Amino acid sequence: MDINAASLEMHYQLGGKIEVVSRKKIETREDLSLAYTPGVAEPCRVIAKDYEQSFRLTRRSNLVAVITDGTAVLGLGDIGPAAGMPVMEGKCALFKEFAGVDAFPICIDSKDTDTIVNTVSLISKSFGGINLEDIAAPRCFEIEQRLKALCDIPVFHDDQHGTAIVVAAALINAVKVTKKQMGDLRIVINGAGAAGIAIGKLLIHMGFGNIIMCDINGIICQGDKGLNSAQEEISRISNLQKEHGTLADAMIDADVFIGVSRPGLVTAQMVSKMKKGIVFAMANPVPEIMPDEALAGGAAVVGTGRSDFPNQINNVLVFPGIFKGALSVRAKEISETMKYRAAYAIAEMIPEQELSCENIIPSPLNKEVANVVAKAVADVAVMEGLARL
Amino acid sequence: MDINAASLEMHYQLGGKIEVVSRKKIETREDLSLAYTPGVAEPCRVIAKDYEQSFRLTRRSNLVAVITDGTAVLGLGDIGPAAGMPVMEGKCALFKEFAGVDAFPICIDSKDTDTIVNTVSLISKSFGGINLEDIAAPRCFEIEQRLKALCDIPVFHDDQHGTAIVVAAALINAVKVTKKQMGDLRIVINGAGAAGIAIGKLLIHMGFGNIIMCDINGIICQGDKGLNSAQEEISRISNLQKEHGTLADAMIDADVFIGVSRPGLVTAQMVSKMKKGIVFAMANPVPEIMPDEALAGGAAVVGTGRSDFPNQINNVLVFPGIFKGALSVRAKEISETMKYRAAYAIAEMIPEQELSCENIIPSPLNKEVANVVAKAVADVAVMEGLARL
Repeated sequence: MDINAASLEMHYQLGGKIEVVSRKKIETREDLSLAYTPGVAEPCRVIAKDYEQSFRLTRRSNLVAVITDGTAVLGLGDIGPAAGMPVMEGKCALFKEFAGVDAFPICIDSKDTDTIVNTVSLISKSFGGINLEDIAAPRCFEIEQRLKALCDIPVFHDDQHGTAIVVAAALINAVKVTKKQMGDLRIVINGAGAAGIAIGKLLIHMGFGNIIMCDINGIICQGDKGLNSAQEEISRISNLQKEHGTLADAMIDADVFIGVSRPGLVTAQMVSKMKKGIVFAMANPVPEIMPDEALAGGAAVVGTGRSDFPNQINNVLVFPGIFKGALSVRAKEISETMKYRAAYAIAEMIPEQELSCENIIPSPLNKEVANVVAKAVADVAVMEGLARL
Repeated sequence: MDINAASLEMHYQLGGKIEVVSRKKIETREDLSLAYTPGVAEPCRVIAKDYEQSFRLTRRSNLVAVITDGTAVLGLGDIGPAAGMPVMEGKCALFKEFAGVDAFPICIDSKDTDTIVNTVSLISKSFGGINLEDIAAPRCFEIEQRLKALCDIPVFHDDQHGTAIVVAAALINAVKVTKKQMGDLRIVINGAGAAGIAIGKLLIHMGFGNIIMCDINGIICQGDKGLNSAQEEISRISNLQKEHGTLADAMIDADVFIGVSRPGLVTAQMVSKMKKGIVFAMANPVPEIMPDEALAGGAAVVGTGRSDFPNQINNVLVFPGIFKGALSVRAKEISETMKYRAAYAIAEMIPEQELSCENIIPSPLNKEVANVVAKAVADVAVMEGLARL
């Protein structure tokens, strides 16, 4: 049975991959009077007087909303709120399995930015954090920014920042392995959507070097027509020599190629023009270039999103720990420094002596990663004065 | 330690009474590829083609949203969305413990009817049913009606219908015990909010007799000024002799008093004017009249909402089974006949030979009740053509 058929059968058998359970057995009158009326009035009164207690007396203490509008689900595109749910439930299962964080999926039946922002804001007091998921660009940028301003809990768009952090982690180690010089790197990012732009911004912030963003029309340059506001913003801090040209042009002498685009856009010939190329071809399920081709073209390190090749660069190394850490200290937000430190924490999970071209990033199944990321995030929150607990 | 202090301590210890868990262990690459990418794309595609499959492939299959605006929480009133959450989590715990139904609490940070309706409608595709809770009257009536029209899943306002069904169940048996004649009863309901009006409507629908609704101003009569639309509607089918007067006037020669109002409004003197009075004094935690006083006044049967007296009339006998039954057949709605049949199913849980003045309703802890209610609801759904499975 192929993976699709097996997954479908598993979904029919489970009837949903998550479950809401009671943390309190209710079998006696006393149980009922403590968990429900009349006793439950007391925690209500305490929260009514001191709002912060809601983060200790209810499941907000450990609860993330996984929120989508179903418009950019996997490679499937705009399939709507009901059809996006299996992915969201999968995400919630990963939150719990990898970090012990409760996560609940909500699919919003609208594609309107104002409506999505208002809806999430109106239900946000039921949660301890908001994980945005699979919302199409460029809408996702505005939605995240506005929600960060409106909500008093951390808001994190995983397709942007989860991807950026795990790419940064892999790149830290790939740079070490190839003995390249941090700061001097020429880094080509193909795909200027949610993931590509967030990767670009984080790598610039972390000081890796000059970023060349490309999209379907080739290199993005400040002043180009038709850029959305997020692309326009990054155009001002990337492509410092104001180059124009194709993706192939961009890749000449590049140290790093990062693909968050579509299958098969990169050839061995293009890779051969790179300098000891680090190639992260993360289009799913078929990468921009297959690892054997990239290696044939002279790539020094290759990573993909796939589990059947070395160096699987997968967000699951990031989001469970990010929220575990943020919830543990009731962080006000997920800051740039938290992202930066999380990337280093993940990279450092591979001991120096074990680093190799085929081992730059921990396995997605390594459940210790979430603890390490959580600690990094919580430490930064305290350091930056963003911790409320 | 008193019940309030004990409940507060329990809430601090638990950090939330519910928990979201994964139904699938994720430990191997295969687990990851079945529950998440790439396999999860297949159930997404199947739902995108056939929306109904979302009720089999995701947790909608067994999942109710417990939704409030925090405006009428217990006897605490308008305490807001965060402070209402301990009650909502308690409700969700009861759903799971009593019927195996997953329930998730959402508190909406608005008191505006349009906003609440829109918000619930926008997130409704993430759920299999909607249980509205502790929303102030008269807003709750319009919210429920509009959501029933907008959503393709059952919508049920528990404060209205859960209360009405459990009162009807108790009344069926109280009528038997007192050998009163169904249809001829004079029934006084004090409190013309969500619960009182729903009780009145259901009892009329079930043919118990003439209902006299009272509120703080006394008997409600058709044409009275200042009635809200729900009160106006019931005034047309109740108080058939168009009486005016006080609550005390209403209770003269009444067979039944049902209080969903405030502590201490009824005296033994008022009860003594009833005919072998059935007194359900359900104000919480202090009833309209204490059972010993009601009995001293000549009441034949007394019920309250409390666990420390006989005949505890509590919604927990109703809502878990209602949704269990509705979800089991993917019912389009909770119909009037389902409510009617649920009330009889609960009443029939007490065998004839065990019926007595002090035993008219099953214990709230009797977990078999939910199964019996669920079966009644599912049977009616099939009979009425409201079942989609």
